[in-house]
Parts: sequence; C-alpha cells; structure tokens
Amino acid sequence: MPPPAARFPAPLRGVVPPLCTPLTPAGEVDTRSLRALVEHQLVAGVHGLFAVGSTGEAAHLSDAQRRTTIRTVAEAAGGRAPVLAGVIDTSTARVLDQARAAADAGADALVATAPFYATTHPAETEDHFRRVRAGVDLPLFAYDIPSAVHTKLAARTVGALAADGTLAGLKDSSGDLGALRRLLVGLRAEGVDSSFSVLTGSELTVDGALLAGAHGVVPGLGNVDPAGYLRLYEAARTGRWTEAAEEQDRLAELFGIIEAGAGAEMSHGASALGAFKAALGLLGVIESPATAAPQAALDGTAVASVREALKRAGLL
Amino acid sequence: MPPPAARFPAPLRGVVPPLCTPLTPAGEVDTRSLRALVEHQLVAGVHGLFAVGSTGEAAHLSDAQRRTTIRTVAEAAGGRAPVLAGVIDTSTARVLDQARAAADAGADALVATAPFYATTHPAETEDHFRRVRAGVDLPLFAYDIPSAVHTKLAARTVGALAADGTLAGLKDSSGDLGALRRLLVGLRAEGVDSSFSVLTGSELTVDGALLAGAHGVVPGLGNVDPAGYLRLYEAARTGRWTEAAEEQDRLAELFGIIEAGAGAEMSHGASALGAFKAALGLLGVIESPATAAPQAALDGTAVASVREALKRAGLL
Amino acid sequence: MPPPAARFPAPLRGVVPPLCTPLTPAGEVDTRSLRALVEHQLVAGVHGLFAVGSTGEAAHLSDAQRRTTIRTVAEAAGGRAPVLAGVIDTSTARVLDQARAAADAGADALVATAPFYATTHPAETEDHFRRVRAGVDLPLFAYDIPSAVHTKLAARTVGALAADGTLAGLKDSSGDLGALRRLLVGLRAEGVDSSFSVLTGSELTVDGALLAGAHGVVPGLGNVDPAGYLRLYEAARTGRWTEAAEEQDRLAELFGIIEAGAGAEMSHGASALGAFKAALGLLGVIESPATAAPQAALDGTAVASVREALKRAGLL
Amino acid sequence: MPPPAARFPAPLRGVVPPLCTPLTPAGEVDTRSLRALVEHQLVAGVHGLFAVGSTGEAAHLSDAQRRTTIRTVAEAAGGRAPVLAGVIDTSTARVLDQARAAADAGADALVATAPFYATTHPAETEDHFRRVRAGVDLPLFAYDIPSAVHTKLAARTVGALAADGTLAGLKDSSGDLGALRRLLVGLRAEGVDSSFSVLTGSELTVDGALLAGAHGVVPGLGNVDPAGYLRLYEAARTGRWTEAAEEQDRLAELFGIIEAGAGAEMSHGASALGAFKAALGLLGVIESPATAAPQAALDGTAVASVREALKRAGLL
Repeated sequence: MPPPAARFPAPLRGVVPPLCTPLTPAGEVDTRSLRALVEHQLVAGVHGLFAVGSTGEAAHLSDAQRRTTIRTVAEAAGGRAPVLAGVIDTSTARVLDQARAAADAGADALVATAPFYATTHPAETEDHFRRVRAGVDLPLFAYDIPSAVHTKLAARTVGALAADGTLAGLKDSSGDLGALRRLLVGLRAEGVDSSFSVLTGSELTVDGALLAGAHGVVPGLGNVDPAGYLRLYEAARTGRWTEAAEEQDRLAELFGIIEAGAGAEMSHGASALGAFKAALGLLGVIESPATAAPQAALDGTAVASVREALKRAGLL
Repeated sequence: MPPPAARFPAPLRGVVPPLCTPLTPAGEVDTRSLRALVEHQLVAGVHGLFAVGSTGEAAHLSDAQRRTTIRTVAEAAGGRAPVLAGVIDTSTARVLDQARAAADAGADALVATAPFYATTHPAETEDHFRRVRAGVDLPLFAYDIPSAVHTKLAARTVGALAADGTLAGLKDSSGDLGALRRLLVGLRAEGVDSSFSVLTGSELTVDGALLAGAHGVVPGLGNVDPAGYLRLYEAARTGRWTEAAEEQDRLAELFGIIEAGAGAEMSHGASALGAFKAALGLLGVIESPATAAPQAALDGTAVASVREALKRAGLL
Repeated sequence: MPPPAARFPAPLRGVVPPLCTPLTPAGEVDTRSLRALVEHQLVAGVHGLFAVGSTGEAAHLSDAQRRTTIRTVAEAAGGRAPVLAGVIDTSTARVLDQARAAADAGADALVATAPFYATTHPAETEDHFRRVRAGVDLPLFAYDIPSAVHTKLAARTVGALAADGTLAGLKDSSGDLGALRRLLVGLRAEGVDSSFSVLTGSELTVDGALLAGAHGVVPGLGNVDPAGYLRLYEAARTGRWTEAAEEQDRLAELFGIIEAGAGAEMSHGASALGAFKAALGLLGVIESPATAAPQAALDGTAVASVREALKRAGLL
Repeated sequence: MPPPAARFPAPLRGVVPPLCTPLTPAGEVDTRSLRALVEHQLVAGVHGLFAVGSTGEAAHLSDAQRRTTIRTVAEAAGGRAPVLAGVIDTSTARVLDQARAAADAGADALVATAPFYATTHPAETEDHFRRVRAGVDLPLFAYDIPSAVHTKLAARTVGALAADGTLAGLKDSSGDLGALRRLLVGLRAEGVDSSFSVLTGSELTVDGALLAGAHGVVPGLGNVDPAGYLRLYEAARTGRWTEAAEEQDRLAELFGIIEAGAGAEMSHGASALGAFKAALGLLGVIESPATAAPQAALDGTAVASVREALKRAGLL
C-alpha cells in the first residue's frame, strides 16, 4: 500500500492531468510506461493526478486493468501529489464497488459521474452521490460530463452537495463555461467556495475558467504538454492574464492533433486518445501508442501529422 | 450448474420477457421471489427468459447481484426455456468479463449493447461484437437501445454481423419500427432470416412488428401479464390479426401504469419499473416492490393507481 | 378560386400523399409538372392531397412559391379530393399569416407544427394551436415531426385539442408507433375517435399503423408509387393483413432510393427528395428533378440507382 | 429612409445588444417604447444594435412586425450606431426575402442562421450563406445558435466564408467557448482576423471570450444593464482583467432573473424574455412587459423577484 497524500488539499488547486493509460500492443496495462508518464507529470510540477478518467480510457478497461492502473499511479506518485481515481460505472451499487477497489488500490480521492445508461432524476442523482460518499471514506468529486453521461448536473444538485460536504469538488467537462460561472458565483454567495474545488476539464478555456474563479484544470492535453499548462496556470495565478491567454492559444493550436484521425473509420475519442498516446510515444514517454479495443488505431499519416504538430509547438 | 437448454432455438421465436429483478427492502436480490416470477412466466408459456436486461435494472445491480440473478433464473428455468442474459457494460473488455460471468452462471445466450459512455464508430461497434462473440462461446444477441446507449445500431452493422453468424439475433428497443421493417426486408433479401432472430422490445407495437416479420417480443410489461402477450403472439402467429390488435390495445391501456409516478421527484425508469414491481406484488408473485438505489419509490397513491389499472385489465 | 371540397371528411381516411413541389432548373415552381403530379395521384385514387409539407420542401420555398403551389394544387384537384396545406412557420403570428394565405389560395384544411426555433412549453403549444384555429376557419391538423421541430407533441396536448374540436386530426411523423398506439387507445376511451383523424407519416409501418387503428397515411414515397399505397390501404381496410404486409414490404424495399445520395456532400433530406423527384422524372410525371437551394443535387450514378430501383419495383 | 451608418466597421467591435422588441398588451410593436430602448442603449455607449434576433422574439413576430421593428430602430439610431438585423427563416429563399425587407427597412448589416427545420449538410450550409450574401448587398454575419437551429456551424464552414469575404463576422451563441477559441486561433493563423468580427452571444463568459480574442459581445442581458457590459468591455479592452471578471460576476448574478418563471407552465425562453422586459418596465424604459404569443406571462411573484434582483444589482 503506497503512502497516502498527507492531507488532501481543500480546495484542490492547480493542474491535475487525467492520465492516459499506456497499453501494450496486446492490450494490457504497460505499468513501466505508466510510471514514466507519472514521472513526466510530476517533474513538470502538476498538483495532482487523475487516474482512469475518460482520457484514461476508463470505459474500455476491465476492473482488473483499472485496479492495476490506480495502484501503479499511486505507487509511482508516492505521496508527491494526490491521486484522484475515476469510479466510472452505471449506477450506485456498481460505483460503490469501483470506489472500494480504488480505495484499496491507493486512491486519495474519487471522481464519480451521475448514473448513466438508466437516466436518473436530479433528486435520485443527489441521493446517488450521498450514498457513494457514505460508502467509502474518501473525498468525492462529481464529474459533470454530458457527452458521456447524457445529462448535465444541475447547479442546484452540485450546490446542495457542496454545502453539506458530500462533495469535495467538481470536475466540469460540460464545456458550458457560462453555467460554470453561475455555479461559482452561487458557491461564493453561499460561502462554500473556500473548501470546494471547481476544476474545469475544458482544456481550451482554462484562462477564462481561472479568470472566472475556477481552482484548477484537468486537461487531457496536459498528458502531452504539462509544462504548458503549468505556465498557463502560473500566469493566471499571478494575474498575468495576457500571458495566460497566449499560452492557452498555443495549447489550443496543439490541441488540433485530436483530429489526426478525421476521415478514418474511427470515433472522435479514438482519434483524440490515439493522438495523445502517439505524441507521448514520439516524446519518448511511453512505449506504444496502442488504445484499448474496440477503438481503431491511427494510421501512419495521422501519426506523421501529430509529429508535425509537436514540432510546431516546440516540443520535438 | 443448471442443465443447458438442449439446443438454443435458431431463430428464437415467441415471447421472451425481460425479467424484473425482485429485491428485498434492503436491496438484495430476493431469490425466492425471482423463482416465483420465473414460474409465473413459464406457466404462462413463454418461449424464453431474459435476465438482467434494462427492465431487470442491470444498470443498478452490482456484479455479484447480476450473477446471483442469472444463476437463480437458470436454475429455476431448469432447461424448460432458454435463458438469455444481459451483459451490459461500457465496452469490450468489460462486456467480456460480464459474458464470462454470465456463462458461468448458466446463461444460454448473451445480449450485449454497443459501447456506451465512450461513443464508437460503426466500424468499431462491429469489431466490438465480433470480439465479444469470439471471447465467449454462446449465441450473442445485439441489443439496440438508443435511449440508454445514445447511438442506434446501423442496419449495415447488424446485417454484416447476421450474415457471418456473429450474431444470433437482435433485440430492438429503438422504438423505430420503420427501421426494423427495412432491416427485416434486407435480411430476407440476403437470405439470413431463417436463422437470425429479430425480437422487438417495444411492447405496444408487437402486432405490427410481427406483421412485419419479427420473430418475437421482449416485453417489459410481460412481467405483469405474460398471458396477454402469449395470446397476442398466438393470434398473430395464426393470422388472426384483428384479435392480435385487440389484445395489443388492451395491453397498451395497461401499459399506462408506467406513469404511476408522474409528477413525483423520480425518473421515468423508476416510475415504470416501480409500477411493474408494484403490480407483481399486488398479484402475489413477488414479496417487495423495492427498486434498486438510487431510484425513488412510488408512493401509496401511485400504487393505488396501479391496483386500479390491474382491476380494469381483469388481472385482479 | 377553385371549388372547395363539398364537405371536409371527418375523420379524413385513406392515402393523402404529401406532394413533392416540382421546380424548374431555375428554381421556380413548375406548375405544369405540379398539375401532372396531382393527376398522377388522383388517377391512382388517393383520398386527399397535402401541399407544401416537409416533402414539398416547404422550408425551402418562399411565401410566393408556397402560394403558387397551393393554388395550383387546389385548382388541379378541382374538388375531386380535399387539399390540405402546410402552414410551416416558427410561431403563432407567422403561422397565422401562412394560414390566411393558404386559405386564400384554396386550401380545404391546414397542417401546422408546434412552434420551433424558440421552443415552447406544452401549455404554450396548446395555446398556439387554439390561436391558429381561432384565426382561420378551416379544419386544422397538428403535425408532429420531432426531426424538424425538435419537440414531440405530448399525448395530453393532442388529446385536449381533439376533445374540444380545435384539431380535426393529427399527422404523426414522429416514427414512434408505440406512442401513437397509446394515443389511439386514449382517443377511443374518450370517445373522440369518430371525428378525429389520425394519419401516420411513417411510410414503412402503414400496415401496423392501420392495424392499430390509424385512419390513413401521408406517405412521401406515395409521390412515386401511389398505387402501391392504395393497394396497401385497401388490403388493410378489408382485413387482408398479410397482403397489406407484403405490399408494405415491397414499398419498404423501394424506399431504399432515399439513400441514393449516401456518401455525397448532401443532406439526408436532399438525397430523399432528390430521389423522389428523380423517380417522378424517370416515370415521366414531372419535367426536372431539381430541388430547392441550398440542397445539393443527386449525380448521375445516384439517378441510375433510382432507375434500377424503379425497375426492380416493377414501375419502369 | 434613415441615414446609413457612414461605413460599417470592419471588424465590428464592442457591445451590440440584441434588442428586446417591446409590445403593447394587444401584441403590436410598441414603437415608442422601442425608441426609448434604443436611446437607453445609445446613451450607455453601445457600439451597435441588433434588431429582431432571438432576444427580439424574431420567431414570434410576423413579417410586418419585423419590418416595423427594424425601421423603428434604424430611424431611432439615426446613424449613431450601426444596426444589424436578424433575418431568421428556415432556408435560403425565405432568408433572402427577409434580407431584402431588412435592407429596405434600413438595416446596415444582416444576421442569418444556417437553415433549420430541414437540416442541411455543411456544404449546403456554406452555399446558403453565399447565396444570401450574393442576393443582398449588405455585410452578413453568421449566427451560430444550436439551441434554436439544432446544428452547430462547423469551424471549416466559418473559416471558408470568412476567408473569401462572404461573411463580415460571426455571432456565436453556441455556448462553446472552446470551439470559439479554436476558431479564433485558426482565423489568426489564416490572417483573416483583422476584418472578420467575432462576437459572443454568451453573456456570462464575456471576459473569457474577450481574453480569447473575441471582438465583442451581443448580450441579451445588455437590454437591462448596458452600462455594466460597457464597463466590462472597457476593462477588458484596457487589460484590467480582474475588474472585467468582477463586473462579469455581478452581471452573472443579475442574470438569475431569467429563472423568474421557473416552476410555472412556461418555456425557458418566455421566462427569460419576460424577465428582461419586466426589468425594462421596472426601470421605466418600456411601457409593457408583454411578450408575443404563445409565450406565457410572468406572474406577480415572478415580477417581484425581478424587482429584488434589480435592487441587489444597484439598478433600482
């Protein structure tokens, strides 16, 4: 069992990359590459690590692979940064099983979505988070990701769960910065902003989200360029907003690699995750760019376009 | 290990209810009630049993609860009807784990959806089904349920997987009978309709679906009134279409119980499943109408409305 | 002013094709071809004509073109069949203007959707239909077409407007035959089915819809093969359901022409409407297959595929 | 005919409120109130006026009401600020008719959406904008509003139409600031940012949008508090980002008035527009808070909540 982060920060602030899960060509978790990726992030100075989130291909990994991933990340982090673990499953009983396994594997905090597959009413969603928090004694983040879950967390739900301490924070991957603004204004009016952490998962509007009062960012692209997100965060933290925006612009251009697979018979997700992993391979961080089945692989032309983008961004 | 159905019918025809999963008030699988429900169905003459589908609250059950449910159904069926088991999970590796567990628990066939949470391209979806079929040697049905999965299976995907024998059949819960018509016409043109089973999951258009050439039906409402669906199926099978439509009309009126919870702070699913279970309780088939967390429960007024509907339908 | 249909039938029954609007290559209404199309339909024995609906490219026609179309159809019909006119616009004031123009141009009945662009609450939608009916004294049909309007008419809304005589009928293009079944059962329970006309716009499930009690069909494909839909309707009307289903299967295969443009840089609508018009051109009914801007045109290969389909269907 | 704005600014920058359309209780355009609203805006220093957009209830106004509105605004502006006019209609021919009428009524520029009701392919959408621009010789803005139109303008489409001068700008009401960021980065890379105006329609993320390089904002809430948006814009323009964010926070709280009608039988739109108009009434700018049929009206309690919000915001 790895040593836990001494105390989980409240609120959690900064750059918390949602780690890719490196795989072998045969589809198993490549723990050596995963350790290297953790080191790549910690050296850059990230403030936390998010394992088996959507970027970590949680939906495509077996329970055993998820456990291996969380344990490997927790051991590699060794208490140098808190480890958040996704507990992605369809509803309460299943999320609780994921949560227990993640706690056993060394997670410092949990990240859960609303139920999906079977849609719930906001009152049921609220009950869901309370039950998950009551079942496993770790800080719990709500993960608002309508593109995957097909409902958006209501501001009222998040507000109630923040006010009574059920939730330690929110990872907002809704892309709806206007709604996030209203939530932040509401949390401040309620006086719960000092302990509740609001993290944006939208990697192209981090400057705006921080300007609006968000505490940090969970950027998929941060796998590839953690230093860029650290510079962006530091510029924002110290009020150098123009610099923050310039760094964000640079990262927005690099983000174009997610379309490497456009036109091929593959999903947007397979293209984006394939591009992140191809980049990590080209940067020498991980061994293989393999993504989990049934996602299609990027072809050579696509990988070449990733290489060119890395060069333009000054990373290669 | 229960005895397997001697030979899985190809194509599977008839009424195959998606069983509710009776629970104790504490939320555990009530195996005694589940056995009684199986008997309730077999006595009525159903042609198969579908365990841990959406109506079985698969999304809300833990892996252990799913296994208990499948094993109980398989044992209670004792080879008198084939047992199909849902293997509902987000993607290939996870579905394969579900499939192995279902096979171990005694399932005669498996029912899998396309990947969800992370959306796949049709080519990736096709690969997904091939991998699931290759991994566990049981007949495999595709489960087309856009309301839960948020994509619709393409006719081309189903056609390809039917033609090469990957799939033994389709459970169509899309509600799109026009698309089903085109699929059936296409399957006949390809000559694959003699072994491939097309079952509709839309309990209000069974007469039309059978008239269009579907082989059977997987009706959630069949939990409550299996005899009604058997009469409907038999009328259709023997060309008495007006009688079939009249029976369908009667069942369509009874189906109104799914709105027992309208206006309450609960999901449509919780209302519908709560009503099915309340009806099974009122009919003396199961002990408790409890649904799985975090679904809200029907109140007394709602249950009273279910009782009235059962009386109007001649079931009480 | 053309002579009106002596008395508008209540309920309207039978086959009511939504007429294509033939255009010249320059994009103007080709009134000569339109008259020929009306004759093509009346000779086949249709029970009504629906001008400037979605199949008539209402969304792409100017007000002047809509008026020309309705007037031409009404004159060509000459009282031999009632003429329904679409009054497609975003909200009440605009629909009322369309309704007045349609009445002036000779329409016998009007077909209106719920407001779109700005979404309305069901109570507002109900008010909308009441205002339209009060403003222009013609029978009013509600047009339920979620693919265009992005809301579905609630059964409660339709029921209330049927019960008090605001609506003369419903054109259901939702594709949701299960919901239509429940509506029909409800209307019969309320005793309003004897005057209220329920027409399905789903051309592939006409047999099932008629079996469920629908009064008729508004089939886009009926432009091309009205005789097929008449045979289907007559078979159903006289209880020969197997024959009805066989005719429906034949039409379902012919319906494949809507995919003539698949793969090209054009919308599904442009492909489907282009195919209907190409077929009407190949059959010698209309002059030009032109569709309205900005819809792309089918290429030669696509038109050749339409020709082959017509041959297979025995129409060429 | 009013005097035109001497030269339409390229790019248009600043605060361009989408004007509410004041109505009499009988539902006619209240031109006196409309003139007062224009004055209210010009006194505050706005950089342009947008008439008959979504906030102007374009979808609910007849053609005659739209013309009256545009003419009144153009006359009241008297060349002191450019007047953009919405030309909201379902497709090309109809938008062209709207565009000619708007030009006749004195508009300085036009704002058009992609076709709706009948969905178009991106290539057809591009053709649509080219035809509209070719048909009426006024600067043309694309209006990206997926909540109304149900498609999102592709970055490729906007980029192509910006590069060749078809479009003078974009009003982005998609709420997707990440996509806007990528568009802005792309426009700069193409060198077309110096003449093409990017305006955000998201009133709660103006600080972030301006930080990302947007040229201005079209805020519905600006009807009520134009001075607030002017302060926000000026703070951002001069690099005082923390002040900009504070002003944005204040406006985000005021924006809560859009939920005045929550729980009532009315649409979100009717609640929001009713609240803006109630506020303008309470501020003494317009006579009546009436919204166009079939939108439901706010009740007294709702109006009282608007009054309280205005007081908290220091406007009353």
